[in-house]
Amino acid sequence: MTSDRPLILVTNDDGIVAPGLRALVEAAKKFGRVVVVAPNAPQSGQGHAITIEVPIHIDRIELFEGVESYECTGTPVDCVKLATNVILKGQRIDLCLSGINHGSNASINILYSGTMSAAMEASLEGIPSIGFSLDNYSMDADMRPAQHIAERIIDYVLRYKMRDALLWNVNIPDLPLEQIKGIKLTRQAKGKWQESFQEGINPRGRKYYWLTGTFVPQDNGSDTDLKALKEGYVSIVPTGHDLTVRSALQSNKDVEGIL
Amino acid sequence: MTSDRPLILVTNDDGIVAPGLRALVEAAKKFGRVVVVAPNAPQSGQGHAITIEVPIHIDRIELFEGVESYECTGTPVDCVKLATNVILKGQRIDLCLSGINHGSNASINILYSGTMSAAMEASLEGIPSIGFSLDNYSMDADMRPAQHIAERIIDYVLRYKMRDALLWNVNIPDLPLEQIKGIKLTRQAKGKWQESFQEGINPRGRKYYWLTGTFVPQDNGSDTDLKALKEGYVSIVPTGHDLTVRSALQSNKDVEGIL
Repeated sequence: MTSDRPLILVTNDDGIVAPGLRALVEAAKKFGRVVVVAPNAPQSGQGHAITIEVPIHIDRIELFEGVESYECTGTPVDCVKLATNVILKGQRIDLCLSGINHGSNASINILYSGTMSAAMEASLEGIPSIGFSLDNYSMDADMRPAQHIAERIIDYVLRYKMRDALLWNVNIPDLPLEQIKGIKLTRQAKGKWQESFQEGINPRGRKYYWLTGTFVPQDNGSDTDLKALKEGYVSIVPTGHDLTVRSALQSNKDVEGIL
Repeated sequence: MTSDRPLILVTNDDGIVAPGLRALVEAAKKFGRVVVVAPNAPQSGQGHAITIEVPIHIDRIELFEGVESYECTGTPVDCVKLATNVILKGQRIDLCLSGINHGSNASINILYSGTMSAAMEASLEGIPSIGFSLDNYSMDADMRPAQHIAERIIDYVLRYKMRDALLWNVNIPDLPLEQIKGIKLTRQAKGKWQESFQEGINPRGRKYYWLTGTFVPQDNGSDTDLKALKEGYVSIVPTGHDLTVRSALQSNKDVEGIL
């Protein structure tokens, strides 16, 4: 292993034993030195949560042949912070990969996604970052087509040294490789979750609410991530960190005069 | 109480007993029927986390005179989902207020902030939403100037029925009211946290890492939230949910050809 091989950090939110992480590690191994820092348990829906009220533990484990791996008691974002500030302190990380998530992170799911938040966190550190998600929530999903596509995208990004603020939200349709039509650059579709709560009484007689829901697309655009996925394309949304609505800087201007 | 009084949902991320929530409830009470649904414990740094692996409990409590209040075992985003889907199901919520947060949520702190994520969640439901934060982390901070400013902003928003996709990230400088210079509409500044981890050995002999850090501004713009705060202005960033970087839809186009 020469020192000029790229250093690739791999994480996820489904936990270090999720099949999607293994597929991503296999894809990444072909291109550089891989270090895994991932949660020790599922952390789906953790968004950009960080752990501040309690300490975090990390343990080095043997899980992937020839790959330095750590499991962490924190969130996906904590994993990236520990990787950059403790485990790989002083080393230049060339690429951060997060996933492959079991389930789509298209549309506004990016806001709830620990997978994408981990990639965003690395991107805030100036590390080119890619979150990969397969449009199938099952732990039994066939990750082979997604692994192949991840390989092609990793190769492209490393080859062309796309360092400038790269943060991609990659969503892959749940199809056999030969049925995947190609890649489309898209924008984040509008949508929302129509929640319902399962209500019940727990063993100690206390009422509980358990979150469940259905995703509702709210965007008929032909250029969205949802549309590309539906048509059998891999969707890549170039993503940033700025939520400012610039048009409203003028339209909301009157409020400046109210004090 | 007539039925045409506005229905105002109030939540936060510092927990239902935080002084900032009390200040916001007092501000909101002047304008309508207030319902509080807030976490039963501090949830700072929870970002857009949702609770999916375990059930949630809610309890009605008596905390604010004449105000229907519920504490919830979930995250700030869970509180909003429970309010809209269970507690206030079928009722039109006219405004969601989150805060007043103990500590600034300017710049990229919006990504980590449970306060702003709660407001964003309500906004995804079509509810005009405002997150308020005071630029002082202390639980002993003087909330009176911020409460006064929140009143003026709530009055304005309700008076002009600014329903269209309103989602404001309001940050208030920690100054006596007479030293606050006014309100500025701003954009989210670039910045990052320079983390360090406090390392130690816990009582059972296990090494731990405890997150801490320093915020590093990375933006010299004259139109940012950080700049406005620093100059003594209340900053309002009109905020959305779309993280797409539209300029990269062209500059990254080549990737569409790689499969």
